[in-house]
Amino acid sequence: MSTLQITGGQVLTPELTVRTADVLADSETGEILAVGDTAAGDRTLDAEGCLVVPGLVNTHCHAAMTLLRGYADDKPLDRWLQEDIWPVEAELTPEDIRAGTRLGLVELLKNGVTAVGDMYFEVPEVAAAVEEAGIRARLGHGIVTVGKDEADARADFEEGLAVARELDGAADGRVRTALMPHSLTTADPDLIAEFVPRARDAGVPIHYHANETTDEVDPIVDERGVRPLEFADELGLLDEGDFIAHGVHVDETEIELLAERGVGVAHCPASNMKLASGIAPVQEFLDAGVTVGIGTDGPASNNDLDVVDEMRDAAMVGKLGADDAAAVAAPDIVNAATAGGAETLGFDAGRVEAGALADLAIVDLDAPHLTPSHDLVSHLAYAVRGSDVRHTVVGGEVIVEDREVRTLDAGAVKREAERHAAELVSRAEGD
Amino acid sequence: MSTLQITGGQVLTPELTVRTADVLADSETGEILAVGDTAAGDRTLDAEGCLVVPGLVNTHCHAAMTLLRGYADDKPLDRWLQEDIWPVEAELTPEDIRAGTRLGLVELLKNGVTAVGDMYFEVPEVAAAVEEAGIRARLGHGIVTVGKDEADARADFEEGLAVARELDGAADGRVRTALMPHSLTTADPDLIAEFVPRARDAGVPIHYHANETTDEVDPIVDERGVRPLEFADELGLLDEGDFIAHGVHVDETEIELLAERGVGVAHCPASNMKLASGIAPVQEFLDAGVTVGIGTDGPASNNDLDVVDEMRDAAMVGKLGADDAAAVAAPDIVNAATAGGAETLGFDAGRVEAGALADLAIVDLDAPHLTPSHDLVSHLAYAVRGSDVRHTVVGGEVIVEDREVRTLDAGAVKREAERHAAELVSRAEGD
Repeated sequence: MSTLQITGGQVLTPELTVRTADVLADSETGEILAVGDTAAGDRTLDAEGCLVVPGLVNTHCHAAMTLLRGYADDKPLDRWLQEDIWPVEAELTPEDIRAGTRLGLVELLKNGVTAVGDMYFEVPEVAAAVEEAGIRARLGHGIVTVGKDEADARADFEEGLAVARELDGAADGRVRTALMPHSLTTADPDLIAEFVPRARDAGVPIHYHANETTDEVDPIVDERGVRPLEFADELGLLDEGDFIAHGVHVDETEIELLAERGVGVAHCPASNMKLASGIAPVQEFLDAGVTVGIGTDGPASNNDLDVVDEMRDAAMVGKLGADDAAAVAAPDIVNAATAGGAETLGFDAGRVEAGALADLAIVDLDAPHLTPSHDLVSHLAYAVRGSDVRHTVVGGEVIVEDREVRTLDAGAVKREAERHAAELVSRAEGD
Repeated sequence: MSTLQITGGQVLTPELTVRTADVLADSETGEILAVGDTAAGDRTLDAEGCLVVPGLVNTHCHAAMTLLRGYADDKPLDRWLQEDIWPVEAELTPEDIRAGTRLGLVELLKNGVTAVGDMYFEVPEVAAAVEEAGIRARLGHGIVTVGKDEADARADFEEGLAVARELDGAADGRVRTALMPHSLTTADPDLIAEFVPRARDAGVPIHYHANETTDEVDPIVDERGVRPLEFADELGLLDEGDFIAHGVHVDETEIELLAERGVGVAHCPASNMKLASGIAPVQEFLDAGVTVGIGTDGPASNNDLDVVDEMRDAAMVGKLGADDAAAVAAPDIVNAATAGGAETLGFDAGRVEAGALADLAIVDLDAPHLTPSHDLVSHLAYAVRGSDVRHTVVGGEVIVEDREVRTLDAGAVKREAERHAAELVSRAEGD
């Protein structure tokens, strides 16, 4: 047994109180063994002056899109996709996706993110990057059938199902998968209905974009006479363990459906603001008992992968949406970014206690913007930055130590991504 | 003459393009001498791999409220003020305010902020902190007459006018002042009307909170039959060089008034979200030609003093408010945080060109979240963090070098603020 002792820090408890405690983790099982006065570990990690929190969870991401960070901004979703993103994505090679994902994972890990839900293409490349980076992930192939003939559409679903089957459990169990039809308007409903039972048989959940914009909701309501999540229900897309992204424009019936079925919401506040999609009713989700996680969405619509900052965005825009400064309070949003996110992605993590996965972020509190220290939960929601994360631990392995990623050469990853991004854009614009 | 040459960086031009150039500044006059292939300086500052941008401007702040960062969150403005903030502020000593301001200025400078508009109490203490920190500031005493008798109310206005007169031009001109009645509902209108001409005689502008919440707007409309800024106009509060904070709930007439009179708006997006005040119509301000600066408001309603992050907040919530992803675009918001802010506060800064004040932030671009580099203006608005600021220069003096504040001992400032905060809360809660 190889153990890691995290010493000298304060720990955020599952009840969101703070106490001084060491944490002992087993790097082989990946679990937390003890919190408190623990035995010594085979190795130690210094958390003096730090707050040890559950690793942050990014429940909805397209990490490889780091390659398009800042490539096209300040446009509405449909024009942004059609004029800028899709033409470039059409040129993506597997090598591009590997390079972009590696960059995204470096960024995530440095921001204290220990698990990510990622929907993209060339998923074996994504999974390989996850394996080498040391992060935990729920991965899937974004199935888009719009503009495809029947054979190509079916082939895309087959690919989505195949990668979900084949990669589930990879990287010593750090990689889990899902069937990921892109959305109810971009993936053929008949094929969704056909493939969902096959995904259930394979034991993988379903993840998709839902109710992101009114442009996506209205056609479903007009054509089918039901709300999108009622339609999703008809297609078999609302089982326990499934999770949707966005959920901005939902009504009460849909919120109840999510709560009843145990379907999580990957709440993406920054993307929803930047694309002017709207404000998700987070306080209503919480009141109804819906599991809420936080997502950055892709770095082309954010433009970073910083769940720390996303907590702040979520709390702030949540109050605005509820027209109530007491809504979406700091503890609720810290919970969403940790335990809620872990539950959304289906990992037994998100809490610093024995038996949970030893996925941890160790936040350095010695900063002017974190002084004084009246309330560390408030600080996490409103004042901590990604750059305050000192160490990141996944499954008891130290992945980021003193702000340096140990599993990947961050300098090489940046240079490689810069080169792939330049070549990609050059190919797309040269066409 | 003592000169500073900033070498090897890329420079953000006044047209918001980026070019490789050195910058030569005169530390005595405080101005930029040349941008391009400059002569050598008496000393150099390394900007290799960095973007040299105009120093960020925080147009509306209550820096000393760092002492209350995280003390009370998740409450609406009126309850937050009455239950938490005002009872503690009643216990503030001049020493507390000095300590809190010093902490706030350390934070601002590390985030690349070179000028701040600050409204608070014990302004000589604030000015002394500004002098030692090396930042530039427009300061004033927040005049509140609510609950005071006539003599005390008048005395508060006299204090506001006296500090504005006496401190204007202090710290070798780095300190400028304004008369700062708190708002149209918290400072007596008759006294405002009486003191405004005296402020004009003294040559100082006026700054006040305006149209922040509907709770503040509606009584004025109900009682006086005019919009708040029409009432402000009657009181003489809308002259060129004056600036308001917030401006959330304004109508078209009021926006035109601001544009016509040359009155700036300190836009505080995070505070307006956190207190659920609403969304200011920033795109409408810009379309009408209103000068817009960015403000953090106090750190008790934010909870940091990070204008870099505030740019992101402003762009994102601006799109949401306009229901248009193309609104409040990256260049507009970068301009607001620099040139717009400098114009709002009345400083000849906010642009990297010869003749302007040498107030600069040098941003380190070597970070995963700033890779690749398709568009550096997009990065400034959406992806750069305060922690990416490597150097901060005010008036040609290097105030922050390699992320360390040179003018103040940041460690001592943090410890001192922590002590003052603890004692302050203990006094307030023990009462």
